[in-house]
This record gives sequence, C-alpha cells and structure tokens, in this order.
Amino acid sequence: MPNLIESILYNGRIITLHADQPRVSALAISGGRVVALGSDDEILGLVGPTTRCEDLNGQCVIPGLTDAHIHWQRTAAALQHVDLVDVPTKAEALARVAAQAAATPAGEWVQGHGWAQGIWPDPAFPTAADLDAVAPDQPVYLSARSGHAAWANSLALKHAQIDADTPDPDGGQILRDASGAATGILLEPAAMKLVADAIPPLTTEQIAGQMQAAQQLALSLGLTGLHDFDDQTCLAALQLLRERDALRLRVVKNFNKRYLDSALDMGVRWGFGDDWLRIGGFKLFADGALGPLTALMIEPYDEQPDNFGMVVTPKAELLDLASRASAAGFPLTIHAIGDLAVRDVLDVYAQLRAQEAARGLTDLPRHRIEHVQLIHPDDVDRLAELQIIASMQPIHATSDYEVADRYWGDRVAWSYNPRLQLDRGVRVVFGS
Amino acid sequence: MPNLIESILYNGRIITLHADQPRVSALAISGGRVVALGSDDEILGLVGPTTRCEDLNGQCVIPGLTDAHIHWQRTAAALQHVDLVDVPTKAEALARVAAQAAATPAGEWVQGHGWAQGIWPDPAFPTAADLDAVAPDQPVYLSARSGHAAWANSLALKHAQIDADTPDPDGGQILRDASGAATGILLEPAAMKLVADAIPPLTTEQIAGQMQAAQQLALSLGLTGLHDFDDQTCLAALQLLRERDALRLRVVKNFNKRYLDSALDMGVRWGFGDDWLRIGGFKLFADGALGPLTALMIEPYDEQPDNFGMVVTPKAELLDLASRASAAGFPLTIHAIGDLAVRDVLDVYAQLRAQEAARGLTDLPRHRIEHVQLIHPDDVDRLAELQIIASMQPIHATSDYEVADRYWGDRVAWSYNPRLQLDRGVRVVFGS
Repeated sequence: MPNLIESILYNGRIITLHADQPRVSALAISGGRVVALGSDDEILGLVGPTTRCEDLNGQCVIPGLTDAHIHWQRTAAALQHVDLVDVPTKAEALARVAAQAAATPAGEWVQGHGWAQGIWPDPAFPTAADLDAVAPDQPVYLSARSGHAAWANSLALKHAQIDADTPDPDGGQILRDASGAATGILLEPAAMKLVADAIPPLTTEQIAGQMQAAQQLALSLGLTGLHDFDDQTCLAALQLLRERDALRLRVVKNFNKRYLDSALDMGVRWGFGDDWLRIGGFKLFADGALGPLTALMIEPYDEQPDNFGMVVTPKAELLDLASRASAAGFPLTIHAIGDLAVRDVLDVYAQLRAQEAARGLTDLPRHRIEHVQLIHPDDVDRLAELQIIASMQPIHATSDYEVADRYWGDRVAWSYNPRLQLDRGVRVVFGS
Repeated sequence: MPNLIESILYNGRIITLHADQPRVSALAISGGRVVALGSDDEILGLVGPTTRCEDLNGQCVIPGLTDAHIHWQRTAAALQHVDLVDVPTKAEALARVAAQAAATPAGEWVQGHGWAQGIWPDPAFPTAADLDAVAPDQPVYLSARSGHAAWANSLALKHAQIDADTPDPDGGQILRDASGAATGILLEPAAMKLVADAIPPLTTEQIAGQMQAAQQLALSLGLTGLHDFDDQTCLAALQLLRERDALRLRVVKNFNKRYLDSALDMGVRWGFGDDWLRIGGFKLFADGALGPLTALMIEPYDEQPDNFGMVVTPKAELLDLASRASAAGFPLTIHAIGDLAVRDVLDVYAQLRAQEAARGLTDLPRHRIEHVQLIHPDDVDRLAELQIIASMQPIHATSDYEVADRYWGDRVAWSYNPRLQLDRGVRVVFGS
C-alpha cells in the first residue's frame, strides 16, 4: 500500500466548522487536504511508514483565517521599517535607527515612520547630524506620524541632490540652518517627495524577501489566506515565492484599474493560477474616505453643509469598466465608503446583474463592495437582493468612530455594521 | 480509513518509462497521480469502497504524449471547417458544404479549405450560385488549397459589401461575369481578404466550444499535453474550459512578442497557473521559413545566389527583448529555421546565459529553439553547451524534403536531424 497520509495531528481541541463532526481531537492530511477527522485512536490507526505525527498537547486548532482586504507588499515593507510610533525621546528613536542601520548593508536605505518631536522632552526638530552620528553609511528617511514631515540624514539629502542652493518646492519647505544649509527636516509632501523619490524601487527579489519575513508573522497569527489589493509588482514577487515553494499563504491577487487592458490583452481570467496564488477581481474606487471627508454622501457632512465628498470614478465609467471586466470573466470589487457611493455601486451592480442574466450566466460572479462603511436605510436590502459580498474591516469602526460621530451624526446607526448585512443573508468578509 | 484510491487500471500492458518497474499490468491513481505500480493482485488489493476499476483487457498503456509546438486555437477552428482537400469533384465539394450548412444556424458562417478546381473533371472555377443552391442561409467562405483563391456564396459577398461597383484591390482580383457581377471567386490574398475580414471574430465561448471538440480528437490519439503558440484569445478560452473543469489536456501557453508589455505589466511570470494550464515562454521569430525561401542562411540558397533569406527580428532586438523577458522570469522560445538564424539565436542565448550567471541563477530557464531545421557544423555542439532545448517537428522533414534537397543541396546532411542533438545530450522535444 502506498503511504498516502502525509501527516497527522492528534491530542488537540480541533474546531472543524464541519456540521457532522464539529469538534475532534485528531485529523489526517493527504495531498495537502484534511482527509479524515476523528478520535486519536481512529486517526493514529492510519499512520503509514512516512507519516509525520504531531502531538498537539491539547492545543486548539481552527481553520486558517483569511484577510479579505490587505495591501501585502506595503504591509511587508512597513514591517521592515523602523517603527517610531510613540517613541518618547529622540535618543530612543536614534537607538532604533542605529539598530536597523547595523543590520543594513552600507549604501542601502533605512526607512522608518512615526516620530513626533512634539512628545519628546525637547520638542525641537531633530537634524540630519543626529542621524549621521548613528547611520553615516546608509541613507535614512523617516516620515513623521502626522504624514506632514520627514527627517533625513546627510547621505539621503545627498542622494536627493538637496543642498543650500535647492529652492523650496511649491507647497513644501526644506528647513535650513543659519548658513542656509538643509537641516534634514522636510515639511509637507511636496518637500518630503524630493527625498522619497530618490529611494530606488525594490527589485522583485527584494519584495519577495520582505514578504517571506511578513509571512512568518501572518502565520503566527493564524492567517493562512490573503486577498491582496496592492500593485502587480506584488504578484511577481508572490510568484517568485511560489516558484521556490516558499509561499505559505493562499493569496487571491486583485488588480487595479490601470491593469485592465493588460489583463484583457493577456487573456487572463478570474481564478487563473493555482490553490496558492490566483487572479482575483478587478478593483475600482467609487469615492474617497471618511478621514479627509471625501467619502461620497447623499446628504452633506455635519458641520460642512456644502461638502458631499468626492466622486473618484464617475458612475458611467464604473459601469463601462465593470461591464468590460465582467464580460471577460472578472468579478468586480469596488471601494465605496459614503452612502451615495454605496448606492451608486449598487446601481452599477444591478445593471451588471441584468447584463449577466442576458448572457445566460447561472454561476454569478462574486462582486464585492469594499468597506460599505455607511449605507442608506433604503439600500440596506440591496446587497442581498443582488448577491453582492460585503467586504468590511472591523478595525475601521474603532479607528474612525470619533470622526464618524462628528460628521455623520445620527447616520452612524447605519455605519460600520456587518450585522445589518449578516441578518439579510449577505456574505460578509473581514479584512484589515 | 478514508478511501484515497480513485481508480485502478488492471490486466494491461503498461509501459511506465520508470526504470525500476518498466512494465507492469496494473496501476493505482490517487489525487490525479499514479501512486502505485504492480501486478493485478498487488494493485487490486488497494481497492476501496469508491475506487473505480477498469479492466484493460490486455490493452497497452503509455504515458501521455505532449505536442510541444501547436497552434491550438487554429487547429481547433480548422477541425470545424469543411475539409475540401483532394475532393475530386465539385459535386462532392458541394455535398460537404451542404452537410456543414445543415448543421449551422442560419446567419452563421460556414468555412472550409482545400478545394482545387484543377483536379475536377470540369476545371472551370465554381461560382457563388453553386454554393447558394446548397447553403442559401449561411455565408460561405472556402479558401483554395493553393492559398491564392477563395470561393464565396452570395450571402458572404453581401456581408463583404462586394457588388458590381466594387473595384479590384491592389494585387487582387474579383472575378466577374459578362454583366460585371462578382462570380464568387476572389484571387490572391488582397481580394480574399475582402470577404475574410467580414467574418466576425469568434467569442471566447465559441473558441472554447471548438477546443472542446478538438480535445476529444487529441485524447483519442494519446495526446494529453500541448505547448501552444497561438494568440492570447486562446488562453482565455482554455481558462473558460478550466473554470468548468472541462479541460482534459495539460497546456503550456507561450506568448508572442506583442504581449510582452502586458505580461510584464500584470506581473505574470513563467509557470503561473496550475497543473492543467500555465504560462510558458516568450516566443520570438529570428527568421522566415524554407517554403518561401525566407529562412536566414549563412550561404545563399542553391539556384538563388543572391538570396540569403530574411531577418524577422534583428539580433540586437532579439537580445534586448530576451533580456527583458528573462529578467522577469520567462524562458525564451525562438523560431530559427535557417543556419544563420540558428547561429544568431545561439549567440543571443550565450549572452543570456552570461547575464543569468551574473544574476547568480542556478536553476536555468528552459530556453528553446523552435524548429532548428538547418544547423551549421560549427554550431552543432552549442545547444548542449548552452543547455538549450531543441524543439523539432518530424513532420517538417517529410513535408519539406524536396524543397530542402533543391535549395540546401549538400547542407541537408545537417538538416531535420534530431539525432545530432540527442547524441550530444540535448533535450529534444517534438511537435506538430
């Protein structure tokens, strides 16, 4: 008999989500799939000569979790950066930069984010010289927590060709000392960009390396699947890991508007790939976001009677792009945060469903709305009616509630509310 | 015990190509793979409650064959067309068209190829009226075996908006009767194109339907794998079959020059896909072909002292495109028929291998030369040295030998010769 059981887990508390056997103590795996559930005795009876057996010592096992909305390349990169959020002193910030510099080859960039000189005992802006003392051989670029300032060392300024003669860009400022030399602080994105643009793009190999480190963190948290929304450089890096049999997360790669022509040209359709890495849906943006008050609203924001938010992709263009993508086999996944954006996207999906019915489709594409942060009471049943997936992020409820209470007022009863959709039988997926 | 053996074949003559057990009578399949080989008794001992057992009744079983160079969409379409090759009379040709028309909905095109009025008892050109009598409701377009004429019915002429007032195109002729009306015969590609361009492109669904029929023929011949060289519409149709679990051939989809930007933009790499359908190499053309004497030669063609053939892609451009593709993870597969084209491609591959070594690659991309029809004695060891696959088509030796003998003279000793490469340890793959 060939030995087909690769591994067995036993002596555990295994929650299967399988109606017939919701809790078992052991399971057997063959061909990458769970093929048997049962008691330790039952399952250990299947052991073959090369089966790997693992004693769980009573630990709990659950099915892997999937993050249904993540920017994986960006997340993996951020994990490699120096974390300066809430660092209480300049000395501590410099110590963290020094540690990262020590682990970085000379000439390669050290990046970080999160410093805020206002919380330090001495609230004066730090300088390039501070960084030069701990990282003379690596260019250093550290963005402030506010997103409105950056702190660079001398090597970074040199790479950006910033010197005493460099004029301030429109809408930005290069801080200077008494002699006119740049201090290392750049104010506002227009000035920050001068240095940020000097950072070379990562190679596919480097991106893959960052992802491999991030993957360990994801697995340690129980995450085994991702739906990615980053750029297509992300796909190339994921494939590199897949080629090397180093990809341990199951990834669905969605793609953005600017890639539709390439996808159609290549003849790629939804689902192309394998169990580990495959092409997902076509991503569009209907509106902005709550933070900058650009989410598209039916009624204006409280306190801002003239502000209805912002249309990012006009409704007619949404329908046109969505129709092309759907006809070529792609489900849509459209960002909509304000209640008017959600309504517009539902209108688009209603027309798309009519087109699909006219084509005789029975296996309906899995169209999604990303975020669904605020929905008008008149629209609350429509996701269920149109069989649209609600992709929601619980973390937004806790990060946004103060702004939502202030600018959406009574409307918040219809915001950040997956229960509304779950009760109507809508498939709700969570992400970060 | 879960039943993991899906099916068993027994009582056969099974040639395994496995060194330890070259011939057996039975095998067991699990998870889509052969997991056990042996005698009938040994293998039938593995039967589980849902195992499907098939008695081979002594039939022979071999591993599936792979056609390493095919244009699958074109092949599948051709199988749907009326075959008029060697049809001895006009009446027989019309009978075949009538049969196809009867199976074709009104308004859809009937296409065919291969007629030659010169072999008919009456060698006069046939007419649109002949076709109208058997296919009044379907536009009909039939290309001649020579490739230099087409025969269309009245509905096809109408779709092409050809009437008595239509001028002859440059380099082509619309045959006309005494009244000046088009007879239905179009001479040379320039005129044939007037009707051919009126045929609507097939939908992905239609292409997939043709492939599903062609697949049955392929499987009946023992073909289980294809390396395709058609356009990317082919990929979309293959994916449609894959989505429906209807793809029964394992397909490697190569892609042509015009798709490189889209592939790089999407971040797709070699091997993306699954066991059934995946992205292959990047296809380029170094030269033309022997038939039209455009294969690129070191010395001129016999009888044509000024003709050295034709460069299709200049060597510098080959190297540039090949470098970009290789850096993005694609192997190259370059068409080269004449001995100078083969030499140029080997030069390009030598530089590519140097680039790959500089990048530290150890798992070398599987670069190929398509056809290798003629090789200069000085180059004969170079495929082995550079680890290049020779993709050859035995059918070309039999179809081309008269032309080769005439125009290549003594050089034919180095033509159509896979043995030259096999003896040097080169991997040789065959296609049609």
